[in-house]
Amino acid sequence: MSKLKELYPLTFVDVALFCVDEQGLRVLLVQRALEPEIGRWALPGGILKPDLDASLEAAARRVLGTKIGVDISHLEEVRTFSGADRDPRGWSVAVLYCALLPRDQIDAVAKNKVAAVDWLDPFHIGHRLAFDHALQIEAALRLLQNKVKRNALPLHLMPELFTLTALQRTCEAVLGRSMDKAVFRRRIKGSEDLVETEEFELGRQRPAQLYRARSGFLFE
Amino acid sequence: MSKLKELYPLTFVDVALFCVDEQGLRVLLVQRALEPEIGRWALPGGILKPDLDASLEAAARRVLGTKIGVDISHLEEVRTFSGADRDPRGWSVAVLYCALLPRDQIDAVAKNKVAAVDWLDPFHIGHRLAFDHALQIEAALRLLQNKVKRNALPLHLMPELFTLTALQRTCEAVLGRSMDKAVFRRRIKGSEDLVETEEFELGRQRPAQLYRARSGFLFE
Repeated sequence: MSKLKELYPLTFVDVALFCVDEQGLRVLLVQRALEPEIGRWALPGGILKPDLDASLEAAARRVLGTKIGVDISHLEEVRTFSGADRDPRGWSVAVLYCALLPRDQIDAVAKNKVAAVDWLDPFHIGHRLAFDHALQIEAALRLLQNKVKRNALPLHLMPELFTLTALQRTCEAVLGRSMDKAVFRRRIKGSEDLVETEEFELGRQRPAQLYRARSGFLFE
Repeated sequence: MSKLKELYPLTFVDVALFCVDEQGLRVLLVQRALEPEIGRWALPGGILKPDLDASLEAAARRVLGTKIGVDISHLEEVRTFSGADRDPRGWSVAVLYCALLPRDQIDAVAKNKVAAVDWLDPFHIGHRLAFDHALQIEAALRLLQNKVKRNALPLHLMPELFTLTALQRTCEAVLGRSMDKAVFRRRIKGSEDLVETEEFELGRQRPAQLYRARSGFLFE
C-alpha cells in the first residue's frame, strides 16, 4: 500500500459554493464529521470515485448532491492544489471548483454526512480551516472577482426575476466595494444576457423593471 | 490492481509549449516512442511521480526538462481533463499547463525519450493527435488568446530586447489576426512592464527603439 501511494496520488474535489444574501457575499463551509481534521470547518469536498464518476466535474456535482443536497447549474474549475503536505493521508491532488447558488435557493441547502453547515463571509472567515482550504477560498474568490471586474454578469447568483439595482448590489457584494450607478448601468446596457420582462417590482419608490437572464447565458 | 484502478486514477501532466517564429504561433509536439498511441504526435507530458514531484507544476517542469531539455519561466495551469475513456490505460486525470518559450530559445529544444519533436501551427495541426490532445491544444490556445485580448503582454515569448513592432507581430500571431498599429501603441502606452532601453535596432528604415521586459513582470 505504501508503494502504491508513491505511484498513485489521492485525488479530491473541493467546491467553493458562493451565494449573495442580505449581508453580502457568502461561502458555504461544512464542519467535518470524520478524521482527518475532525470538527474543523472546510469546503464541501470528497474523494474522486472512478467507478462512480464520469469526470472530475461529475465528482464535484456528486459531492455537492450527497453532502448538501443541491444541484448546481454553474460549476467552474478554478485550479489544482497538490503535494505531499496538504493532506495527512498522503500525496494528494485537490481539484477546486467554484459554484454559484441563486439567492432564492439558499434555503434548499441540506446537511448530510457533515456535523454542520454555515454560510460565512469569505473576506473574514474567522475559523482556522482544514487542509489548504483558506488558500482555496482565496483562489475561488479571485476567479469570481476577476470575472465581475471584466464585466461578466454573475447571473447565476440572481433569483429568476430581479431589478438592475439588485444585480448591482450582487456585483458589489462580489467585489467587496460599491460601484457608481451610472457607470454600472452604462456597462450592462446592451448586454444580450439581460432580458427585460413586463413585470415590475413594487416598493416604496417608483416601480422598478424586472429582468431575467437569457436562457443559456454564460458567465464570461 | 484492477480494484486499485477503481480507487486511484492515473495522473498525468501535459504541457502546451508555445513560441512565435517567423511563420507565426507554434506549439511543440512530440512523436510518441512508447505505447499507447506509439508513433502518434502528442503534447509533451508524463505521469505524475509523487516520490519525485513536489507538486503537479513541478511534475510539468520535470517532464519538460526530461523530454525536451528546456527550463521554462512561464508555466500556467489551464485545466484538467478526466474520465475513463481519454487514455486506454484506465481512468485518468491530465492536468494541462500552458508554457511560453522566448523566441531566442527555440533552438535550445532537445529531443530525449521521444521519436521526434516539431513545432506546428496550432490553428491547423494536420495530424490526428494522441489522446485528447487536440482538445487540450484548443483549451491552451484559448487561454493564451483571452489574455492577449485583455491586453496582457505575452513578454515571455520575446527575446531579451525587442522593438514594439516585434511585440505587435507576436500579439498578432497569438490572435491569428492583424491589429491596428495606432490602437496597439495606445494600448501598451504606459505599460509598467515595458522598459525603454538606450539601444536601437538598425535596419532598412529608421532606427527602432529597443525595449526589454521589466523584471518580475506578470502575464496578467
